[in-house]
Amino acid sequence: MSKVVKFGGSSLASAEQFKKVGRIIKEDSERRYVIPSAPGKRNSKDKKVTDMLYTCYDLTRNKGNEKKAKELLKEIKARYDEIISGLGLKLSLDNEFKVIEEKMIKYESADYLASRGEYLNGIILADYLGFEFVDASEVIKFDEEGEFDGDLTNDILSEKLKEVVNAVIPGFYGSLPDGTVKTFSRGGSDITGSIVAKACRADVYENWTDVSGFLIADPRIIDQPEVIDTITYKELRELAYMGATVLHEDSIFPVRKEGIPINIRNTNAPQDNGTWIVESTCQKSKYTITGIAGKKGFCAINIEKGMMNAEIGFGRKVLQAFEDNGISFEHMPSGIDTMTVFVHQDEFMHKEQQVVSAIHRLSKPDSIEIEADFALIAVVVRGMKSTRGTAGRIFSALAHANVNVKMIDQGSSELNIIIGVSNNDFEAAIKAIYDIFVTARL
Amino acid sequence: MSKVVKFGGSSLASAEQFKKVGRIIKEDSERRYVIPSAPGKRNSKDKKVTDMLYTCYDLTRNKGNEKKAKELLKEIKARYDEIISGLGLKLSLDNEFKVIEEKMIKYESADYLASRGEYLNGIILADYLGFEFVDASEVIKFDEEGEFDGDLTNDILSEKLKEVVNAVIPGFYGSLPDGTVKTFSRGGSDITGSIVAKACRADVYENWTDVSGFLIADPRIIDQPEVIDTITYKELRELAYMGATVLHEDSIFPVRKEGIPINIRNTNAPQDNGTWIVESTCQKSKYTITGIAGKKGFCAINIEKGMMNAEIGFGRKVLQAFEDNGISFEHMPSGIDTMTVFVHQDEFMHKEQQVVSAIHRLSKPDSIEIEADFALIAVVVRGMKSTRGTAGRIFSALAHANVNVKMIDQGSSELNIIIGVSNNDFEAAIKAIYDIFVTARL
Repeated sequence: MSKVVKFGGSSLASAEQFKKVGRIIKEDSERRYVIPSAPGKRNSKDKKVTDMLYTCYDLTRNKGNEKKAKELLKEIKARYDEIISGLGLKLSLDNEFKVIEEKMIKYESADYLASRGEYLNGIILADYLGFEFVDASEVIKFDEEGEFDGDLTNDILSEKLKEVVNAVIPGFYGSLPDGTVKTFSRGGSDITGSIVAKACRADVYENWTDVSGFLIADPRIIDQPEVIDTITYKELRELAYMGATVLHEDSIFPVRKEGIPINIRNTNAPQDNGTWIVESTCQKSKYTITGIAGKKGFCAINIEKGMMNAEIGFGRKVLQAFEDNGISFEHMPSGIDTMTVFVHQDEFMHKEQQVVSAIHRLSKPDSIEIEADFALIAVVVRGMKSTRGTAGRIFSALAHANVNVKMIDQGSSELNIIIGVSNNDFEAAIKAIYDIFVTARL
Repeated sequence: MSKVVKFGGSSLASAEQFKKVGRIIKEDSERRYVIPSAPGKRNSKDKKVTDMLYTCYDLTRNKGNEKKAKELLKEIKARYDEIISGLGLKLSLDNEFKVIEEKMIKYESADYLASRGEYLNGIILADYLGFEFVDASEVIKFDEEGEFDGDLTNDILSEKLKEVVNAVIPGFYGSLPDGTVKTFSRGGSDITGSIVAKACRADVYENWTDVSGFLIADPRIIDQPEVIDTITYKELRELAYMGATVLHEDSIFPVRKEGIPINIRNTNAPQDNGTWIVESTCQKSKYTITGIAGKKGFCAINIEKGMMNAEIGFGRKVLQAFEDNGISFEHMPSGIDTMTVFVHQDEFMHKEQQVVSAIHRLSKPDSIEIEADFALIAVVVRGMKSTRGTAGRIFSALAHANVNVKMIDQGSSELNIIIGVSNNDFEAAIKAIYDIFVTARL
């Protein structure tokens, strides 16, 4: 058995946090490969090291302010030194910082500078754990276009890991064919962890963060929402698409393909089981719903045309009008002579009149009406095929909460129900649904 | 004020029925223009005259069986003579039948023969009422392609009706530019009535039949369903599309354009108010729902593709696959990575594999699944924007009835909710919805 364990920035923000991480790794010898993030915030007013590094780049490159950049780099070094001394390690990062400062002055790329947060944290963590340090730029490979090269990486990385029992591999970055550093998008350490888990065919990919798992609803809306025990990749994707985030979206695909489950865990509460993200499960969730998520800022374009249903190609022509203007649609519920297309308001706004005139030109409708400020909410229900009455409870709860349901969309996959409400009703709607299924356990 | 009154076949099937029609017309002098159908069934074993006339055509033209055709024509004449004598009229149709028999033997068109049912009924009714008889072939005009010529008809008809205070104009037929008779499709007397109402700018188009209006639900499923007081054209269209029928669909457009309401009335219960079909109304319906209708025999094609929503043009490509195979889709609810297209099973069956391969070719999905035997139900709710909780009640009722809801589609027009259930649950679903809103009046 082997486990790949990735720790987020808050899990590695201070010596105290490093010690928690050390205990977690030491208590389970299967936790063989460790992916660290850069040090995150120690408190709400603190800065993330990665943000500080981007500021360094910005100061030298765009503002020609090398002096300030050097001062900021010293601040960063002080943070690492504090961790090192807090852990009682005999380790010096003087040489590393000399190199970083030199490259910073020479305007080395933003990717290079930003990646140093994980790189340095990796060196400290490897030293602290007594694990081998494997520089990600040697094993995580991008192609000439800057796209992640999954096949090449998997070859190099799996060869490398065959030789190494325990290793620390910094997250977030890799290298281009010419050796220069290239990063994933922000949060990319999640992806590195997934890639490593795939390469060593891990039994589980543990993703340690500062919450005890994936929450049933957004904690900014629901006070201390419960944690989801088990969620499938598909369900996660549905919730993530609708705004719920714990994992970087691209981190799912490498492990999913290999059937490796992800376990979201809390570094500050290692006794909690966290959330298991799996391909498929026969486990019933504790509640009828797996989760709720939603987003504001959608626009509804309502198109009417008599005898629309009899006209082959009508819907296709309407969608063509959106496609021609580079706008993707979210949902398209339809009545008999009406069809409504939901799009992201910010994408649509600037092209509104072009799209409307294209719809007129292509599909010759009787009328078009645009309604703005919609929120869409996805309620994910695992056992929906067998849980009759779920829709009834959702809409009764919304009615009790005085929420006007403006759109409903449920396909025959029955994995979820998409509900459209006005932006103003968004929070009330999520609360009502959470309360009926989780608080009241109906 | 003037009213156009159309009477269906059962309202004019016998002398007794003619007397009811006579009383209805005489009691309101505004009922100036009367559109009769051909005599319908007097009882469940009876034949409609129009069907008998089609049989006559069939016997002579296709089977060369003139003798049987002549006998059948005699039967038809006997029915008219019975009406004439029952009404005590001094009227003979001998000459008319001589002409009809001659033309029948000379293989005059099916349209000509079929139209004689209305023609003869019109002559009797005009005589009985003392109204002028206006042959529809003089005032209802089709163009050379056999399409109804609305503008020409309106010019001729409105000129004609200016001279005539009271008239009987047979329904169902008109004439081509060369003067030969051309009929509408079956049930076309409804259309004639609507055209006449438009031409004389009637205040109301009364459509007299054998039910006291448009029913909230199908009487084959709900025992003695209640009648809808008032329904808008849009609502009617939604219910009609989903299988509810009283009026010929094409009969709506002429009067709708002019803002003339249609009043569905019952010749056998003239004291009932019937159903008013109007452009728009501020009247609340008696019940939360205006009506329910549905159809069986739909197929769901469920298409999955990871990151579908991010792909501009995906939905359009899927619909293209259906369009290229000449299949119109009914609804397309979508989740995050899934999209389901509902189509008529009978249209889709024969082209199933072509469509599936076209979807694969055009949109490269991860998977396609086909599920058959769906029924779609439309619940039309007028005040939906203000009637919170309607959706909750619908789905709770369906859950209580053990109906599994497989699809929900409600656009932001909020005129109705489309619900997908399995064919087997169709009747139970309609009953459950009828009961909660009408029987229980929730």
